[in-house]
Order: sequence, then C-alpha cells, then structure tokens
Amino acid sequence: MPVHTVRTETAAVTPTATLTPQQLGVGARFSVAVMDSDYVRILLGALELADASGLEVSTDDVSTFVGGAESDVLRFLNQVIAGAAGSGVHVTANVLLSRGCPGEVTCELPPGVAVLPATEVAPLPRARILAAAHWSVYPLSDAPTADGAVPDHMRDIEAAVDLARSLGTYAGSTHYATRLVGDLADVLATIAGGWLLVGRTVGHVTTHATLSLNSPTAGAAKAVTR
Amino acid sequence: MPVHTVRTETAAVTPTATLTPQQLGVGARFSVAVMDSDYVRILLGALELADASGLEVSTDDVSTFVGGAESDVLRFLNQVIAGAAGSGVHVTANVLLSRGCPGEVTCELPPGVAVLPATEVAPLPRARILAAAHWSVYPLSDAPTADGAVPDHMRDIEAAVDLARSLGTYAGSTHYATRLVGDLADVLATIAGGWLLVGRTVGHVTTHATLSLNSPTAGAAKAVTR
Repeated sequence: MPVHTVRTETAAVTPTATLTPQQLGVGARFSVAVMDSDYVRILLGALELADASGLEVSTDDVSTFVGGAESDVLRFLNQVIAGAAGSGVHVTANVLLSRGCPGEVTCELPPGVAVLPATEVAPLPRARILAAAHWSVYPLSDAPTADGAVPDHMRDIEAAVDLARSLGTYAGSTHYATRLVGDLADVLATIAGGWLLVGRTVGHVTTHATLSLNSPTAGAAKAVTR
Repeated sequence: MPVHTVRTETAAVTPTATLTPQQLGVGARFSVAVMDSDYVRILLGALELADASGLEVSTDDVSTFVGGAESDVLRFLNQVIAGAAGSGVHVTANVLLSRGCPGEVTCELPPGVAVLPATEVAPLPRARILAAAHWSVYPLSDAPTADGAVPDHMRDIEAAVDLARSLGTYAGSTHYATRLVGDLADVLATIAGGWLLVGRTVGHVTTHATLSLNSPTAGAAKAVTR
C-alpha cells in the first residue's frame, strides 16, 4: 500500500446520553396467568388500567412485549400484575427483562457502545400484595470488558443475589433460581436492580422471573425465613 | 522449594460415562397455569398421571423442580402440559431447562468436566394439541473451549434457531425470543434440541420458554406462515 493512502481511522462513538431505549434494546416480555374462568375480563381490565406512557406495548397469543425506558417498563409491570392480583384470585406472572441486544439475530448496539449507561429504576409504589418469585439473571458476556475484567457469569449472578439480600427480598437459593418474597413492588425492584447491576459491566443481560400471588399455598411463602 | 518436593500433578478427570444427571446439573423448573376456576383439580390430575420414573420432583408455591436425565425430564413435561391442556381450557406453561451448573452459587462440575457429554432426547409421542411458544436460549460461556473456540453467545443462539427451522417449528423472530408453533411434543423437542445443541460446546446452558395452548386467540398461532 503506498504510504500516501495510509490514514488513521477511529471508530465512531455514539454519545450515550442521546441513545434511546430502542437503540439499547431495553424492554420486557411478560405474560400474566389468571387462575379463574373470568380470566379474560380480569386480565384485560388490568392491562387497560396500567399506565403505558412512553412505552411500546404489543400483545400476541403467548406474551406481551413492552419496549421503553427501564422505569416506565417496571411501573407498567407493577401495575398490570397488581391489577390482576387485585381480583383476589391466584395469579402467576412470567417476566423477561432484556438490555443490550436491540437486534434479533445479532446484537446491533450503536457504534462504540459496549456497555450500556448505568441507570436505576424509579421507586415503585408499594403494591400491598405479597409475591413469591423464582428469579434468574443471565450475563451474556463474550469477552473481557474495556477495563480488562474477565467474564465470570457466576460472579455477576452472585452480585445480583447479594443485592437481593441487601434489599430484604432474598428468601433462599434453589435449583436454577433465587427465591424472592415480599411486596410485589419490592420483588420487582429486586429483579430490575440485579439486572441493572450486572448491566454495569456486561453489555447484554437478561433476567427471568416467575411470580406467584394469592397462591392457595401462600402460607409457604409467608413462612420463609427472611 | 527443595527440588525433592517438586511433583507433577494432573487434574483428576472423571469418566463422563459414569456421571449422573445430578452431578451434571441436568433438570428443569416449570410452572403450568390453568385459566379456569377448577385449576387445582386439573393441574393436580395432570401431575398425578404423568410418568415421573427416574426423576426427582418437588413443587412449591411458585414452580416445580424436576431433576434427572434429559429424556425423562422432557417426557414428564410433555405429559403434564398435555394433561392440563387436555381439559380444553386455556393453559400456559413456563419451562426452564438447565445443564452444567449443579451448584447454586458456583457451578460445581466434577473434576475435568468442562462440557457435558453430548446427548439427545428420546422421541416424544405426539401430544395432538397445538402449542405456540416464545423461546430463548442462554449459552453461559466465560472462556474459550478446549479446542479454542471463542465464546460468541449470539452465534450459538443462531445455531439453535437454525435447528428450529430444520424441525419445522420456527414461526418467526421477535423481541428477545423465537416464536415456535407446532404439536406440543414438537415444540418441546425443539426447545430441548436447541439447548442440547448449544451444550455440545458450552458447559452451562439454560433455556426458557413460555408456551400457550387452547388460547382464545389461537387463530393467530394457526395463521402464522411456516
């Protein structure tokens, strides 16, 4: 190559302050199950009353997608689940939160973005309903971070579980999941908090939780040592 | 250190043929939701009729743990979900499959085992009931494999999705999940097949799926282009 064609290229870097939740792949997929023959009315009522401001919401026959900023997503989830459980019947909810993979086949983050800007979820109003959950966090790291930290998914998961301990919702470790018990809002805040904590060092992080409310065996949840 | 104390130590290697599913952390956690006021009878009936041979099964107020060999776990899941959906009412199921992390805080695989022995799930009898699912696979790899393959979780996920395409259950890509549609047995076989495919190169692999059967909007599932 002739010398006069040599040039220095620097990768374009996108200022993170300008990035939208859509560009960062921030959102949720969830399904709420209502153990009652009147489930359609109860579930649609809960969805209608929830505040979807700032969110993209689309439902199919399996689950509901919610795209938007973390605080908006969690506010919506808290309201929908609390609304359904407010009927008094047994309700379960499955929640998947994801950040850092806006593409579906490849993770197409904007140029220069390896780890998403740190953020926190705004405090959720107490739902005044007890929830028990099984919770898992998945740090999907392929390479060392910019500051050289070697990937160690179990180290990151344990940091999220430690957060649950500090928040008072930790209720034991079980196969493939951590058990959480508390007010629905506190359980959701723990799930989101662990997810965002791991996201400080890992670009693509998902978390899954199964929540149970008004269970006929809820005595078991209340009896767990905190 | 005096020379006479120097010795060569080789890591003990456990013959994989002798390893139990418990040692390899093979199992599932699942919950079935029945959208009917008679849900307790329907669900307990389905659990009672399912063949739990060779499995450790324990249920709490959130979900059911099933530990054992892959084929036994999938047979049991197929029977429980088909049994509940056989009632004709709307049923959803959440399934988490995990391999390669028998510990709860650290992944305590036997010495010398980095990747689990390759295996396949025995063919499942057709359930004769249509299921739609949202499916995600999580390869949790921290380091290159013994043969030097660099971790790339999206490459591994795409290989699992390609398997779904070849099995005829692939029904599109959506945010954070792949949509699967087919006979319940074929959908479960796809979920397990992708999980085991990724497990050929990654030690710790989990997969999550939300399944919907007898949905009042099931027309949407049937209408999906295959």
